[in-house]
Amino acid sequence: MISQLSLPRYVSALGAKVLIRRAEPDDLHAIMRLLSDDPVSAGRGDVASDEDEDAYAEALDRIMDDPSNEILVLLARNQAVVGTLQLTMIPGMARRGSTRLLVEAVRVASTERSSGIGSALMRWVVDEAAIELRAPLVQLTSDAARTDAHRFYRRLGFVDSHVGFKFSVALPVAATV
Amino acid sequence: MISQLSLPRYVSALGAKVLIRRAEPDDLHAIMRLLSDDPVSAGRGDVASDEDEDAYAEALDRIMDDPSNEILVLLARNQAVVGTLQLTMIPGMARRGSTRLLVEAVRVASTERSSGIGSALMRWVVDEAAIELRAPLVQLTSDAARTDAHRFYRRLGFVDSHVGFKFSVALPVAATV
Repeated sequence: MISQLSLPRYVSALGAKVLIRRAEPDDLHAIMRLLSDDPVSAGRGDVASDEDEDAYAEALDRIMDDPSNEILVLLARNQAVVGTLQLTMIPGMARRGSTRLLVEAVRVASTERSSGIGSALMRWVVDEAAIELRAPLVQLTSDAARTDAHRFYRRLGFVDSHVGFKFSVALPVAATV
Repeated sequence: MISQLSLPRYVSALGAKVLIRRAEPDDLHAIMRLLSDDPVSAGRGDVASDEDEDAYAEALDRIMDDPSNEILVLLARNQAVVGTLQLTMIPGMARRGSTRLLVEAVRVASTERSSGIGSALMRWVVDEAAIELRAPLVQLTSDAARTDAHRFYRRLGFVDSHVGFKFSVALPVAATV
C-alpha cells in the first residue's frame, strides 16, 4: 500500500531543507501552475486555465482516493509549493514478479531549477520510497524533447533502456444518464 | 474501476477467433512460459524456473486482487494460452486530468507471431478497453532492443514520443518479523 510511505519528510537540497508531503485539495492551483510551467506541457493542453479547474480538481480527488497512487508536493522554506510528482505502485509479473514504482508528472518550478530540489526529490524516490514500498524497479518516461531532463535522470542513475509509446484515444462524449 | 471491462471478449485475428479473458490462478505456468519466451525477458531473469514459481504466484495474486490492475490472457482455438498482457488504470493530473491506461508485459507466443493475435489484442486495448474505461491516453514502454515490436506499435498508431527510464533498486533483505 502506497499509504505506508513515511510522509511528510524533510530532504536536503544543496543544504536547504525542503518538505515532501502528500498533496491536499488546497494544493490544486499550485499543482496546475507547475504542470503548465513549461512549453512541453503547455503544448499538450496543460495551461492552468480556469475552465479546466473542475477537470483537475476531479483528477486530484481520484488520485487522493486511489490506494495505489499518491500525488506529492515539495515545499520550500517559505512554504511555497515548488515541485510535484505522482507515484503509482504497480504489481507485476515480469522480472520475477517485481512490483514497480511508476513516477509521473514530475515538475519543479522554473524559478527553482538547478536548486537541487529535483535531485533531492528523485533521490528520495529511489533511495527511500522504493525501498519502503519493496519496489525493485522505478520507472518513468520523459518526453523526447526534454533533453535536459534526460541528462538529469541519467546523472541520478536511471537507464534509458526503453522507448515510450503513447496512443491518444478519441473518447466519445459520455451518454447523459 | 478496471473490473468494469467487458470480458471475456472474442476478437478476430486474421479471420480466426481468439478469446481475451481475465487470467486465473491456473494460468500461472502459461504466463511464466510466455514471459520467458524471448531473449530480452530471459536476459532480465524471466526464465520460468521452478524456483521462481512462488514469486510469480504471489505477483499474480497481487495483480488479481488490485482494483486498478488486470492481467489478461489470450486463448487460441484449441484453448491454449497464446498471449498475455497487463493493464493498469492510472488517474492523473497532466493533460487536463487524463486517466491513463498503462500496458505492461505484452507477450505473444513465439509460435503465434505474425498470426494477427498481437494486433487484435492491442486494437482491442485502444479501440475498446480505453473507451470503456474513459482513458484518453494509452501508454507503454518497449525495450530499445525490440525493434520489431516498435514497428508493430507504430503501425497500430502509437507514437514513440518518450524515452523510458528504469532504475533498479537493490532492496535490503526484509527483516523477519
